[in-house]
Amino acid sequence: MKIVIIGGVAGGASCAARARRLNEQAEILLIERGPFVSFANCGLPYYVGDVIREESKLLVASPELFRQRFNIEVRTGHEAIAILPAERKIEVRELSSGQSYQVEYDALVLAPGASPLRPPLPGLDREGVFALRTMPDARAIRDFITSRQAKRAVVVGGGFIGLEMAENLVQRGLEVSLVEMLPQVMPPFDPEMASLIAERMRSKGVRLLLGQALASVEADLTVRTREGLELPTDLVIVALGVRPETALARSAGLELGERGGIRVNDQMRTSDPHIWAVGDAVEVQDIVTGRWGLLALAGPAQRQGRVAAATICGREARFRGVQGTAIVGLFGLAAGCTGTSERTLRQAGRDDFSVVALHPGHHAGYYPGARPISIKLIFRSEDGLILGAQAVGEEAVDKRIDVISMAIQKKATVFDLEECELCYAPQFGSAKDPVNMAGMIAANVVRGDLSLARWEEIGEEAGLVLDVREPSEFERGHLPGALNLPLGQLRSRLGELPGDRKLLVYCQVGQRAYYAARLLVQHGFSPALLSGGYRTWLDRTAANEDSLVVK
Amino acid sequence: MKIVIIGGVAGGASCAARARRLNEQAEILLIERGPFVSFANCGLPYYVGDVIREESKLLVASPELFRQRFNIEVRTGHEAIAILPAERKIEVRELSSGQSYQVEYDALVLAPGASPLRPPLPGLDREGVFALRTMPDARAIRDFITSRQAKRAVVVGGGFIGLEMAENLVQRGLEVSLVEMLPQVMPPFDPEMASLIAERMRSKGVRLLLGQALASVEADLTVRTREGLELPTDLVIVALGVRPETALARSAGLELGERGGIRVNDQMRTSDPHIWAVGDAVEVQDIVTGRWGLLALAGPAQRQGRVAAATICGREARFRGVQGTAIVGLFGLAAGCTGTSERTLRQAGRDDFSVVALHPGHHAGYYPGARPISIKLIFRSEDGLILGAQAVGEEAVDKRIDVISMAIQKKATVFDLEECELCYAPQFGSAKDPVNMAGMIAANVVRGDLSLARWEEIGEEAGLVLDVREPSEFERGHLPGALNLPLGQLRSRLGELPGDRKLLVYCQVGQRAYYAARLLVQHGFSPALLSGGYRTWLDRTAANEDSLVVK
Repeated sequence: MKIVIIGGVAGGASCAARARRLNEQAEILLIERGPFVSFANCGLPYYVGDVIREESKLLVASPELFRQRFNIEVRTGHEAIAILPAERKIEVRELSSGQSYQVEYDALVLAPGASPLRPPLPGLDREGVFALRTMPDARAIRDFITSRQAKRAVVVGGGFIGLEMAENLVQRGLEVSLVEMLPQVMPPFDPEMASLIAERMRSKGVRLLLGQALASVEADLTVRTREGLELPTDLVIVALGVRPETALARSAGLELGERGGIRVNDQMRTSDPHIWAVGDAVEVQDIVTGRWGLLALAGPAQRQGRVAAATICGREARFRGVQGTAIVGLFGLAAGCTGTSERTLRQAGRDDFSVVALHPGHHAGYYPGARPISIKLIFRSEDGLILGAQAVGEEAVDKRIDVISMAIQKKATVFDLEECELCYAPQFGSAKDPVNMAGMIAANVVRGDLSLARWEEIGEEAGLVLDVREPSEFERGHLPGALNLPLGQLRSRLGELPGDRKLLVYCQVGQRAYYAARLLVQHGFSPALLSGGYRTWLDRTAANEDSLVVK
Repeated sequence: MKIVIIGGVAGGASCAARARRLNEQAEILLIERGPFVSFANCGLPYYVGDVIREESKLLVASPELFRQRFNIEVRTGHEAIAILPAERKIEVRELSSGQSYQVEYDALVLAPGASPLRPPLPGLDREGVFALRTMPDARAIRDFITSRQAKRAVVVGGGFIGLEMAENLVQRGLEVSLVEMLPQVMPPFDPEMASLIAERMRSKGVRLLLGQALASVEADLTVRTREGLELPTDLVIVALGVRPETALARSAGLELGERGGIRVNDQMRTSDPHIWAVGDAVEVQDIVTGRWGLLALAGPAQRQGRVAAATICGREARFRGVQGTAIVGLFGLAAGCTGTSERTLRQAGRDDFSVVALHPGHHAGYYPGARPISIKLIFRSEDGLILGAQAVGEEAVDKRIDVISMAIQKKATVFDLEECELCYAPQFGSAKDPVNMAGMIAANVVRGDLSLARWEEIGEEAGLVLDVREPSEFERGHLPGALNLPLGQLRSRLGELPGDRKLLVYCQVGQRAYYAARLLVQHGFSPALLSGGYRTWLDRTAANEDSLVVK
C-alpha cells in the first residue's frame, strides 16, 4: 500500500506518523511545498516577538527524523500541482528545478492547510506588507523590522493572529495600531467579553481602531481605511483570517462545502473514496450547533490526521466534530472560549437559551493574589444543556474553559457543573470553584428559582432597576435610574418598593442580587437578575461605546 | 418551620444560607461551639506561615452578616450537648456561662465536622504540642513560635495538613522534620508519585523521616518514635488526620457507618427522618469504587449542605457522591488527584485495570518555560472507563486533574480524553495536550495496539529490557540489564534482537518506546511498554528506597 500525503504540518504530519504506527509495511510519502515539515505554526507570532529566540525551536520534526524514526519519505520544496483521481496519481513539481513528475497512490491525504486572506485591495503587494503563516513569513518580518529599524506597525485584523502579532510587536518596542472592521476584536467572543480584551490592549498602548476597513496601502506604507483614516507606518501585517487551500481538491472534482472547504465525512474521507482530507482545508461540523464551518486550529487538525490514518489502515475511527475551544494570551490577560457564543445563537434565530455572567476570583479570596475571571455561560433554558462558555482574566482562565469543554463534549448540563468536584486548595481554587458558581447560578435559572432580566429592559417603563449594593458602592457609579436599597436593609424596607413593577436587581457581580431576588420573590415581588451585575454593565457599556464609535 | 443547624463552618454555613434562599419564612438557627462561623479552614496553615497575614481574611462571614443578610440567628460559643430525637429538641450549653437550655426543631442538621486524631500517647498534651483545625489553634501556634522564638519544629503526619504545615513552618524560617509512619507521604497518591513530593520537600530542607511512628513527646518536647529516633525540637504539630465528630449523633442513636462516620442517604438524611448530617462527620460514597468512606474536604461539604437544605425545604436534590479530587501546593510543586489510586484498587483485589504514566511539558515545548508534569492515569482495561488520575508538577497540574475529574463525573473513557478539545496557545498547552496524550496512550492499550509491561517483570528471565534512547542518554543512566538500541536504528538492527523473548521497551518518558513497540509488534516481536519510561523508573526507585529505609 502506498499512502501519499500532501502537506506536512499539523494534520499531515500527524497522519503520516500515525499511519506508520498502524502499518509498518506501507510506503508513506509526505509532499510539502514549503521548506519545513511539522513546524510550530502557533509559535510564529512569538518568534517575531523574540519571545521564542531560536528558529530551530519551532521545528518540531525534521525530514531526517521522519525518515529515521518512521521510515517516511519527506519531500520538502515539492508542490503537488494536480490530482488525477481516475489514475490514482498526483502530479508533483520540484520547485528548485521546476521539473514535474507523477506519483501513484493507493490512499491520498490532502492536508494543504489554509492561506492568509488577501483581499484585492491596492498596495497589499508592497514590500513591508506581510502576512504570517509560515516560517519564511516570520523570518521576513523579523528581518524587515531589524533592517528597516521599523518603529511603527499597523496590524489589520483583530482575530487571534492579529492580536498576537500586536502584542509581539509591542513587545519588540514598536508603536502598534490595530485596524478591525467589526466593532469588536476576537469574533468568537461576544462583545462584552471582547471589550475586556480591547481594554487591556489599549492600556498597553495599542491604538485600537474598530469599525475601520482596510482600503489600501500607499507607497510610503500609509494604511488608508474606507472610513477615511490615514495611518502612516513602517510595517503592515495583514491578518484577516485564512481561506482553505482547495485549488487541488477543486480541480480534482472533489466536493466542497458551502463555506468553501473540502467536504469530508466523519472518517475524513472526501467524495472520492481514495482521497482523504484533514486540517484547515476541510469543513468541520460543530457538535453544539450541528453546523458545518471552517476552524483553523491545530488540535482538531491532529485528531483528523489520526482518524484519516486509522481509516486508511483499515481501522474503525470517527472524527467527533469540533467545539471551537480556543484561547489567546495577551499582555498578561487570557481569553478562552468553548462551544458556541450568544451572537452565533441569536444569528441563528434561536431563543431557547439563557446566559449567566459572573466575575469570581480565580482562587479563594482569602489567599493573596486572587484575580477576577469574567465568565459567561450559555445553556439551553429547558434542561440546562451547556452550549458554550467564554472567560477572560489573568489567571487560570484556561482551566475553567477546559473543564467546561470536557463537560460540553460529554453533553453535560449546568447541574453537572453545579456538582463537579474540582481541585481546591486556596492557591488553586475555591470550595465553590468558579465553574461550580457558574453552574449554580445557571441551575437556579433552569429550576425556576431565579429569573434573568434582559439588559435591554433597563429604562423600560415596566421595570424598576434595584441596586442592592452598599451606598458607598452606589455612589461610585450605578445604572441609570437605579434605586439603591442595600441587601442588608432589604427585609426591613420592602415597603419602599412598588408592588406592581418588575424589579431588575443587580449588585457588583451578582451574588448579593441573587440573594435579594430570592428574598423578594418569596415576598411576592417579581425580581429578575441583571446577570453579572455592575461589572458586566461596565463591560457592556464599553462594548456599546466601541460599537457607537463604529456607527 | 424551624431549622436548627449544629456547626457553622463549610457544610453548616452553606446549608443555612441555602435554606434561607429557598424559604424566607423558616426560622433558622445556627449553633457553633467555636468563636467563629464560616471561616476558611483550608487557609489556616498559610496563616501560620504568614502567607495570609490578617486573621480577618479568614473570616468569610460573620454572625452579624448572617443576621443582616439572611435573617439567620447565629450563636457562637454555644455547644449542642444532646439531641432528644423523640421530642425534636436539642440541649445547648452556653460556654461562657455554663448554662444550658433546650431548642426545638422541625429539621436538625448536624455539621459538627471532625476533630484532629490524637492517639493516646505520652506527652501529646504538653504545651508546645499542637493540632491545627481551628482559628484558635492557628493563633496559638503563631503566638508560640513568636513568644518562644521557636527554631525547630517536628510535624507528625505526612498528609495534606502535615505537608502544608511543613512548608509554612519552613517559610517562617524554622528547621522542620516531618515524621510519617508509612513509607510515603500523601496516602491518596501512589508511591512513585508521592516520591516526587518527598524529593521536593527534601530539596527544600525538610528532614523527611518515613516509616517512623510517633511514640511520645518528652518534657523538653523531644519527639521519640517507636523505631527509636529522638528528635529534639521547640514545637510539635500533630497532623495525623481527623476523626468525624459523632458523639452527638451516637448518643442520639443515629446510625453510623463502618468507617465511624454518620451514615446518611443521598438526601443527606440520617436514620432519623428529621435529622440531616453533612460535612466531615458523615460517610460518603465514592462514585468510582462504590465504597463508603470518610473524606474531609470543603467542596463536597458545601454541596452536601445545599442538598440537605433543599431536601428540608421540600425540593428534590441528591448528593451524587465523591471522587476525592484534591490538591496540595508545596514549595512550588503541585500534586493533584481525582478518582481512585492504583493502591486502592490493588487492596480491593482488583486486576481489571491498567495504568499509564507520562511526563509531558505543561505547555508546548517550543515556548519558553515549559515544565514537566508527571501524570498517572488509571482506567478499566476492558473498555477504558477512567478510574483515577494523579499528577505532580510545577505548573497547571490542577487544570489537568480538573478536566479528568469532570471526565470521571461523566463516566468518560480514555477515548474521550484522546478526543477532547482543550485550549491551545503555546503559553497554555499543546496541540496534543497532556490530557490528550494520556488518553491516546491509554486508548492504544484498550484497543490492543500497545501492551504494557509490569515494572516487576524487569530482571525476569522471560523478558529482555530494551532501551531505545540515544547512547548518550543510555550512558547517563539506564535500567539494570538493559540493551541499548536507539529508535532511529531499530529497523535496520532487528536481527540483533532475540525472537523468543518478550521485549520490555522503554525510553525517557514513553513516546519513543511506543513508536518502537508499534514497529516491533509488526515485525513479529512481543514488545511491552514500561509506561512512563526512565523517568517513572527513577520515581519508582526513589519510592522503593524510601520503602526499604522503612523496612
